[in-house]
Parts: sequence; structure tokens; C-alpha cells
Amino acid sequence: MTPVRVACCQVRLTVGDVDGNTGRVRRAVEAAAEAGARIVVVPELANSGYVFTDAAEARSLAEPVDGSTVTGWVELARRLGVVIVGGFCELDPDGILRNSAVVVDDGGVRALYRKAHLWDREKLVFVPGDAAPPVVDTRYGRIAVMICYDLEFAEWIRLPALGGAQLLCAPVNWPWASRPEGERPSEVVRVQAAAATNRMFVAVADRTGAERGVDWVGGTVIADPDGWPIGGLALGREMTVVADLDLEAALDKRISDHNDVHADRRPELYAPVHATKEIHD
Amino acid sequence: MTPVRVACCQVRLTVGDVDGNTGRVRRAVEAAAEAGARIVVVPELANSGYVFTDAAEARSLAEPVDGSTVTGWVELARRLGVVIVGGFCELDPDGILRNSAVVVDDGGVRALYRKAHLWDREKLVFVPGDAAPPVVDTRYGRIAVMICYDLEFAEWIRLPALGGAQLLCAPVNWPWASRPEGERPSEVVRVQAAAATNRMFVAVADRTGAERGVDWVGGTVIADPDGWPIGGLALGREMTVVADLDLEAALDKRISDHNDVHADRRPELYAPVHATKEIHD
Repeated sequence: MTPVRVACCQVRLTVGDVDGNTGRVRRAVEAAAEAGARIVVVPELANSGYVFTDAAEARSLAEPVDGSTVTGWVELARRLGVVIVGGFCELDPDGILRNSAVVVDDGGVRALYRKAHLWDREKLVFVPGDAAPPVVDTRYGRIAVMICYDLEFAEWIRLPALGGAQLLCAPVNWPWASRPEGERPSEVVRVQAAAATNRMFVAVADRTGAERGVDWVGGTVIADPDGWPIGGLALGREMTVVADLDLEAALDKRISDHNDVHADRRPELYAPVHATKEIHD
Repeated sequence: MTPVRVACCQVRLTVGDVDGNTGRVRRAVEAAAEAGARIVVVPELANSGYVFTDAAEARSLAEPVDGSTVTGWVELARRLGVVIVGGFCELDPDGILRNSAVVVDDGGVRALYRKAHLWDREKLVFVPGDAAPPVVDTRYGRIAVMICYDLEFAEWIRLPALGGAQLLCAPVNWPWASRPEGERPSEVVRVQAAAATNRMFVAVADRTGAERGVDWVGGTVIADPDGWPIGGLALGREMTVVADLDLEAALDKRISDHNDVHADRRPELYAPVHATKEIHD
């Protein structure tokens, strides 16, 4: 199987500057395609920016899935022959604000996902989605999508992994947090663990560009099924991380003569998780 | 709350040398207690060693939970005023071989756990347990226990975490595997992620001492609720990792004004994990 080149574009975004943001995203995707990328991941809320003053400001920046941002990505995907996975501030058909992401290719919008686990003040702005992360067959492999804080929930990652995803793409906006000297960002560590425990590639596109006192990890990363970051770590700069991935490798979950990370699960024993949760609620 | 000193003893073990192994474990626990540790974790299969030729050899080394190894740990716990968490090769009351671990303190054997996810050739030797990791109230805090490969299953870690465990103790024998230059052992990365996504301390005692061609990571580690390794990384040597833990910190699952790593779970959406698994079986 020929490896597929995957690019994660760590783009500088500015809250409220939809034209500027979508322009920078477009140029990053064009440059990635020019460099041979066939799957391109761009950040969460890549049209609107992140640090809204309030829900009204988010609403003023939100677009339907057939609005100019996603329509622009579909045109770009067709023109460049790439798959694009990106996040955008969505006004859904019921007029509800969603933190959403799409998978688009020359077939148009292949999947629309709405973030199910909302971070901090997002809870004051967005309504979380209730649908599992989609798994989409593309010409380059089976791609799943989720957004940022969703990645912290291993149960959520299991769904597309068990659904056969070879590559999980995650648009994120990881707010900056201090870490001990010499340590990698904790978000990256968790992505490594998610990749390894599912033997699945995970490609994350973070952002840069401080907004209203919030700065970002800038932790764009591509992890392989062993959990190792490949293609380098971005760590803060506006840049694109690129790696050539043998996505077939993610179909093989064996890790020893007698072990398979998925077949070794014992889901009949995990059900008490839910019972325990109910007791604690 | 006064911090409690936790020690994880990375002991050299030799398959078949029960007296030598239990003696080295005893001396390591005594030294840890002397240095002020109140909770001491020792490796998996700390009586028997690991690389059995076959099930018959394991059977010849196995002991009931009231055998000399665990009885010795209870005596040690009483004499030193410590909690000991350690793994041993168990012959259960039905004559079945188990890869087990106990939590012992001055009250005796407080919990007996049988490894539920078996690694590689363990499947030819042991029968896996079916019971969730126990959570034990000790005078120093709520302690849970699981063993080695169990740690790779985030669903399994959720059970004691949701059950209120402040400190998950894990006896392990991590077989050595190559890793890219400059990378931390992948097992340690996954422990960091488990700690952070549950805001729980995790204390792992690995081993040293090559056996029949198998060497070990020697990755003994204590991770805090942010997922950072504290007290250093052992990385191969026979040594003890020590850290003073404020176990109260593990009771607070909040990570922002609006987020709590457990309350933010959406278990009603995770059930398809099990359905998906059944389809794939």
C-alpha cells in the first residue's frame, strides 16, 4: 500500500475575522496539497476564532454547513484532489450554535460532526452534539473526526476505532497551560496514548494567534499506531506538520503472538462504568 | 491534608527463585518504610518471576493467598505500619492459576485482584479474573489495584476511578521494546494519560532482571493527577521511586470553571462501544 501524505495545518486565527481566517486556512491547505498532502486537517472553529465575548458574538460569526466556509472547502478539495477535515462555528438548521467539523472531499460534505464534550465557556455558547464520531470511507482510507476536548474521553475514541477508522482527525484549539520543564504538552501525551491503545493514526491540527488573553499550546501532532509522534512537533509556531502514513498498518491490531488491542477488550466487564456513573450523579 | 509518601520498588526478580525474590522484595519494602514510605508497591509476579517455560512450571511456583508470600507481606505491613500492594503467582481455591495482586495492611489482606487482561503467553498459563479492580479504604487513602496490561484498557481504569480511587497501584512486568531516540517508554506515556484523564494518582512498580531472553522496560513511575511523572523515572535500574502525594487532590476532578473530567463524561453515548464490539466479534 502506498503511504498517504497527511498534513495538519497549525494556522493563526483571529476571533471575528472570518475572511482573514478562511483565507489563511485556504492558503495553508493549498501549500499542503502542493507539498503532496492528500489529507489535510485544519483547526477547530477555523472560520470564527475561539474566544467569543458571548453567545451573541458567536452567533454573528456562525454559518450553516452550506455556508461559504464549508462550501469553500468543498471547492478547494475538488480543485486540489484532497480530503479536508476542519472545524467551523455552525448555525444548525434549528438555529442552534454548534462547535462542528466536516470531512469534505470531491464528493462534497462527507460527514458533519458536532462536538459532544464542550470545553469551559463553550458550554455557555454551544449545544453539544449527541452523535458518535463519523467514520468515512475516502479514497485514501477510513477517516474519523472528533474535536479537541472529545479526545480526553477514551470511550469516545473507542467508537470510531472499533468502527474501523484508520486515521482519526481532530481539529483542536488547545488553550495554553504551564507544564514542567522538559515535558511535552499533556494533550499530546494523551493523543499518543489514544493512538497506541487503538493502534490507529491520530492527526491533530491546533492553532496559533493569542485572542483576548488566551494563548495556545500550538501542539499540532500526528501520532502513529505505536503512539509515537511522527513528522515533528509544532510547539507554538504557525506551521504545517506532514507525515507519510501507511494507513493499512492501522488495520492490524495485534501487538504480540497472543494479543490484539481490540479483541483483548472485555466489554462485558466494562458495563459497570455506567452503573457507577449513575450512582455518583 | 498531610501528603503520604508512596514508594514503588523496582526489584530484580529471577524466575523460579521464590526465596530470593521474596527476600529482595522484603528488603526493598523495609528500606522504603525506613525512608518514610507509607504505601509501597512491588512488581507483578513478585514471588515466582515471569518467563515460565510452561504452565507446569508456573503451577510449581504458585501459592494460595494464605501462602508464605502474602502472609509474609501481611506481617511486614503490620511490623512497618505500611500498606503493601504487590503481585504474586496464585493458585486459587479451585486449583486455577491466576496472575494476582493483593492490597495488604495491618488489617490483613484487604483485597485480592486477578488480572483480567492477560499478556501474550500468560494466556497459556493463567485464567483471567472477571472482577473489577477493587477500591480499598486504607488509613492513607482510597487505593485501587490492577496489573500491567490491564492499564492499556481505559475502560478498566475508569471503574476504580469512578469508584473514588485516589491512587491506582499497579504491579507490572513491562517487557522491553525498542522506542525512538529520546522517547519515554510508551507504557509510561499511557500511564500519564490514564492519570490525567481521571485526575487520579497512578503508581506503577516495574521490575528488572533479564529472564530467558526477556528483558524489561524498568519503567517504574508515579504519575500525578495532571499526568506528570513525579519522583523521577527509574528506567532500567534496580531502584525505588518515591514521591509525597497529596491524595486529597485526586478527589477534585475539576479542570476549568465549567469542566470536570468525570462529570463531563456522557456514558449514555458510549454504550455503542459494546454493540460495535459484538458486531466485530
